[in-house]
Amino acid sequence: MTGGAGPHRPADAEALALARRILGGARDAVLSVLDENGWPMTSRIALQTDTAGVPLVLLSSIALHSAALMRDPRAALLLAPPPPSRGSILAQPRLSLQVRAELAALAEAAHLRAAWRARDPRSALYVDLPDFRFWRLRIRGGLLNAGFGRASVIAPGDL
Amino acid sequence: MTGGAGPHRPADAEALALARRILGGARDAVLSVLDENGWPMTSRIALQTDTAGVPLVLLSSIALHSAALMRDPRAALLLAPPPPSRGSILAQPRLSLQVRAELAALAEAAHLRAAWRARDPRSALYVDLPDFRFWRLRIRGGLLNAGFGRASVIAPGDL
Repeated sequence: MTGGAGPHRPADAEALALARRILGGARDAVLSVLDENGWPMTSRIALQTDTAGVPLVLLSSIALHSAALMRDPRAALLLAPPPPSRGSILAQPRLSLQVRAELAALAEAAHLRAAWRARDPRSALYVDLPDFRFWRLRIRGGLLNAGFGRASVIAPGDL
Repeated sequence: MTGGAGPHRPADAEALALARRILGGARDAVLSVLDENGWPMTSRIALQTDTAGVPLVLLSSIALHSAALMRDPRAALLLAPPPPSRGSILAQPRLSLQVRAELAALAEAAHLRAAWRARDPRSALYVDLPDFRFWRLRIRGGLLNAGFGRASVIAPGDL
C-alpha cells in the first residue's frame, strides 16, 4: 500500500484535513486482522484516538481479534463518518489505514478508561469489563477516499 | 476463524436467518485483502449477491484491491444493514465473512451487469466502466455478531 500507488495522488492539505477529521471524530471502525493461517478477518470495534492522536481500540481479550493481534500485530482499519441518510455510501469519504497494534501497558488503563468514557458515555456498557484491554494502532500508511475516484495516499507521519 | 471459536456458539435458525438477510440486502461492504507483504488492507466496495446467493463484487482493475486479489485470493468482508439514526452502531448486527475471490468470466459480464444495475440504479455511475470486473467471493466461514456479546459461528454451507 505504501509506494506504487497507481492511480492515487499524495494527499494535499485539504485531503489531510479531511483524514484528520475522520480519524479524530471516529468512535468505531472496521478492524481487519490476520487469522492463524494469515487469512484476513474483520470485525467492527470501538475506536478513539489518544491525546497524541494515535488510534486506540479497546478489545475483549477473549475475542478472536485479540488473539490474532497477539500472534501478528499487522492490521488495518476502515474509518468513516456516520453515513448519510440518503445518497450512496460509496460516494462518502472514508479512510483506510494500515496499522501495527501495540498492547497498552496495564499501568495506563485507568487513565485511558476515564478519557474513553468521557468521550463516549455509551461505552459504560463495556469499558470496565475486566477482560478488555487497550491497544494502540500505529499508522503505517493508508488511503483517503474522498468519494468515487478521488483517492489520496496517506504517509505514516501525515496524521 | 473456523474452529476454536472460543466464546462463540454455532448459529441457530434465527441467527442464520439474520445473516442471510444482511447478505441478501447488502449493496456495499468493507473488503479486506492482503497487500504484497501479506499485511491486511481495507476498502469500501459495492457488493450484491448473484442468483445463487454468492457475494459478488465489481472492482476497478486499476485499484489496489484488484491487484491484491490477483496475487492472493484470500479476503474478508464486513457486512451490515444501514446503521440506525440513533443508538450505538456497536449494538447493531453485522456479518463478518472470510472469502476466497474468483474472477468471473468475461462471458458473464453483460448478464451480471444488467442484473447489478437493476438491483442498484445508482451503480450507473461505474457499472459500465471498461476497467471494472466482477469477482465472486466464495464463503469459507464467518461470524454473525447480533449485538454486544452475541456472536454465532457461520459455517461454509450455512448461507
